[in-house]
Amino acid sequence: MNKATLGRFFEDFGIGETIRHATPRTVTAGDQALYLALYGSRFAVQSSDEFARALGYPRALLDDLLVFHIVFGKTVPDISLNAVANLGYADCRFLAPVYTGDTLSAQSEVIGLKENSNRKTGILYVRTAGFNQKGEIVLSFVRWVMVHKHDQHATTPDAEVPQLPAHVAADSLGRVCPVIDPAQWDNALSGSSHRFGDYLAGERIDHIDGVTVEEAEHMLATRLYQNTARVHFNALAEKSGRFGRRLVYGGHAMSLARALSFNGLANAFHIAAINGGRHVAPLFAGGTVFAWSEILDKADLPGRHDVGALRIRTRATRDLPCTDHPLHDATAERPGVILDLDYWALMPR
Amino acid sequence: MNKATLGRFFEDFGIGETIRHATPRTVTAGDQALYLALYGSRFAVQSSDEFARALGYPRALLDDLLVFHIVFGKTVPDISLNAVANLGYADCRFLAPVYTGDTLSAQSEVIGLKENSNRKTGILYVRTAGFNQKGEIVLSFVRWVMVHKHDQHATTPDAEVPQLPAHVAADSLGRVCPVIDPAQWDNALSGSSHRFGDYLAGERIDHIDGVTVEEAEHMLATRLYQNTARVHFNALAEKSGRFGRRLVYGGHAMSLARALSFNGLANAFHIAAINGGRHVAPLFAGGTVFAWSEILDKADLPGRHDVGALRIRTRATRDLPCTDHPLHDATAERPGVILDLDYWALMPR
Amino acid sequence: MNKATLGRFFEDFGIGETIRHATPRTVTAGDQALYLALYGSRFAVQSSDEFARALGYPRALLDDLLVFHIVFGKTVPDISLNAVANLGYADCRFLAPVYTGDTLSAQSEVIGLKENSNRKTGILYVRTAGFNQKGEIVLSFVRWVMVHKHDQHATTPDAEVPQLPAHVAADSLGRVCPVIDPAQWDNALSGSSHRFGDYLAGERIDHIDGVTVEEAEHMLATRLYQNTARVHFNALAEKSGRFGRRLVYGGHAMSLARALSFNGLANAFHIAAINGGRHVAPLFAGGTVFAWSEILDKADLPGRHDVGALRIRTRATRDLPCTDHPLHDATAERPGVILDLDYWALMPR
Repeated sequence: MNKATLGRFFEDFGIGETIRHATPRTVTAGDQALYLALYGSRFAVQSSDEFARALGYPRALLDDLLVFHIVFGKTVPDISLNAVANLGYADCRFLAPVYTGDTLSAQSEVIGLKENSNRKTGILYVRTAGFNQKGEIVLSFVRWVMVHKHDQHATTPDAEVPQLPAHVAADSLGRVCPVIDPAQWDNALSGSSHRFGDYLAGERIDHIDGVTVEEAEHMLATRLYQNTARVHFNALAEKSGRFGRRLVYGGHAMSLARALSFNGLANAFHIAAINGGRHVAPLFAGGTVFAWSEILDKADLPGRHDVGALRIRTRATRDLPCTDHPLHDATAERPGVILDLDYWALMPR
Repeated sequence: MNKATLGRFFEDFGIGETIRHATPRTVTAGDQALYLALYGSRFAVQSSDEFARALGYPRALLDDLLVFHIVFGKTVPDISLNAVANLGYADCRFLAPVYTGDTLSAQSEVIGLKENSNRKTGILYVRTAGFNQKGEIVLSFVRWVMVHKHDQHATTPDAEVPQLPAHVAADSLGRVCPVIDPAQWDNALSGSSHRFGDYLAGERIDHIDGVTVEEAEHMLATRLYQNTARVHFNALAEKSGRFGRRLVYGGHAMSLARALSFNGLANAFHIAAINGGRHVAPLFAGGTVFAWSEILDKADLPGRHDVGALRIRTRATRDLPCTDHPLHDATAERPGVILDLDYWALMPR
Repeated sequence: MNKATLGRFFEDFGIGETIRHATPRTVTAGDQALYLALYGSRFAVQSSDEFARALGYPRALLDDLLVFHIVFGKTVPDISLNAVANLGYADCRFLAPVYTGDTLSAQSEVIGLKENSNRKTGILYVRTAGFNQKGEIVLSFVRWVMVHKHDQHATTPDAEVPQLPAHVAADSLGRVCPVIDPAQWDNALSGSSHRFGDYLAGERIDHIDGVTVEEAEHMLATRLYQNTARVHFNALAEKSGRFGRRLVYGGHAMSLARALSFNGLANAFHIAAINGGRHVAPLFAGGTVFAWSEILDKADLPGRHDVGALRIRTRATRDLPCTDHPLHDATAERPGVILDLDYWALMPR
């Protein structure tokens, strides 16, 4: 028997099952520096211990999406090694700040299973939680993936599909962010004078810049997250695969779009929740990523006078500048759009 | 109104104006490791806490050029997003040592403006200062850039061009370097027995090795410095740009040349000042960088018996080995030379 | 005289000579993060401070091969700058755990010299030791390299070839690993329930995954180790060299194979010794690396009930998946095999 594992197939999952994932991971200043080098992020609370301390944090925060990618990465060997596709995310909530020195671990619960009519694949729904070394939950999200069956004739349980919220309720967004002192927020250092009050629902922002992706970059990033999904690394196998080449991890596009969004959303310093996200089309090395955002909604946080929440829809495109906010009145399934992300960000008042 | 910014144009600057730049940045061991991976630097004071402590430092120093690049990077969104070209540096002085854990910020003062006769562009002179978290100035330099006007018909102030020193005076070089104990300097560990007394003005050194640059590398580096200049990142836009491809950040060539110069200048452990620097020709991925140096001058530091200063002119070339110190008797504008850097380095006696 | 050095040639070495190498190096969380991004390693003791502490370590360990590469890198400027080829390793023993914050230095003793009959080259044998800042030896290994003579007519001493052990004796493997508490070893977090007792001599494991190597990646890695061997960096010179292109540092393939081996050997948390290693064929960027392992032997450690030692032979291949453990009954010199590594790993009971 080969002690190496091919990963689980659709028929190997059962509703209610909880999977504790390997490998726990202490996050460090090394991770922050690499994240910065990979995406060029410029949000001040994640870049400067001094800026963070002035607001009441003990030191600079870890980038929220770095936390997301690390927790997500842990689930891959157990959940999606035999995935055909990542279909979506929902109800992703950031629940506690994460700092360098914290150790992240993850577990997932199977909350839905639905075999496809071809009997070759099925849809698997899992809720994943990320924890810090104190056992506090720092992140919770649902994702669903289409997974291969190993044996087409294996019987599978009756379909069970979870109810998922269309978006995260604004009144649950505060936990990730201790009360800060907005009077200490220095607009010059943060890069923008636009605060919560300056944004309007319906407003659109072209983030202007584009960044070209290299094979070495997305592989460095995906390995940093200890994400082992094969399609990102093995050019030999992918040559005869679906796309004929390595596929960029979808989260890489999320982080590129988030970093580009600094130009126009410099004070959106924290991601409090991801309402939903779809990788509309694949991204490959050599592609140049652009992004634009639309303010979908604004919300007060109960009892909080320091920060408000902006609901933002960000689309990333491939080889398509966003000067005219392309496709803003259409469904996103058009050539050029690769990511459609709906999230809540916190911004000082 | 798009809340994203296109950056300032020539007519947006006024003499005497001071600009505080975003984003403050805590430098860490992560930055040092990445800098090492990007350039392969081997100077012992920056590599080893123990070596540094033996000399009297609290721990290893940050690489001087890493400090320069980070401070420089902060100025880009405000100063040179619409630059046609970086024309030069002068009077760059390193004024305090920088360690991991320090937080760097930057501000610039407009000290010169001169519209070009075509009225489409102008030359902007700024003095930039970098600070640590205690408010101490760690770096000061002047640079001048050719910047686009947004509106060709905009009126601009009368030309004002600052007087700049041809080189930094030797008696101002000591501040970056606390008194060290040269008796504790271990030549075997530092990689060379050649001390200050062993170098002669006029001496030439071929640094022998060459290193080929990859797109992923220069983009990782430039993002690490949070430098957002578009020409380095956007292959799609640059395809129809001046060079038809992404341009490598000029500072990347400076750091490559400095790392190569270890072979021959291993004990030149500190850059105290940059007298001037010109990016003579562009560098692109795929090019192989070589370097050679000439000792222009030697200077004692007032009241200091531990270290002396070497004035060094280093030229970096592209795809041109430097065995014969090419172009040493000519102006530098010849095929192959990409960088002409004149700096003061400190060396133990 | 050029103060830059071309490195030593065969006739410059003498039996018994000890060489202290530059540059001492403090290892940090930055190095660990980069190592992770370069190889995607998932061994829990090196990834998580908490996992390591539960076992009795003060915090996460540095990856053993990262220690090896850093110590090896220091020897390159003195030993192998003029090497034709690295011929082999032997008697490599890891002798003390290494943690972030430790400062590594290295020295080598010349233990063998044998001129080749062509009088143009010779075989140089050195024993290299790596030390931490307390002067404790952390690593010891022998390597032999074929080195150019500078002057074909130079006389060289009588041939002297050291006796080297065919493999490291099991009773000397314990020093690198303080006694741990295997009851605290969490199989879910470590990624496998297979402990020492579950492996049998003769067992074979296909590590399944493949990873494609990029130029930027192997150069970043090799510079991180401050390894200056020219063949890895200079595409211009290598165009007219032996292979027509840059050669990947052999240690890069070792670390790729080790990271791939997690799938099947997740609890083999420590490399205690390398019995021998050969770079059977060169690796170049664009190649996809696979690996498979064979358990050669098992050994108890004297007086130790916490861990046992597995002797593992791992072959890495290029563009050749290992489903059928290719070449397991043949000599390794076949197309596709690039690395043949024989090592002792520790595993909890």
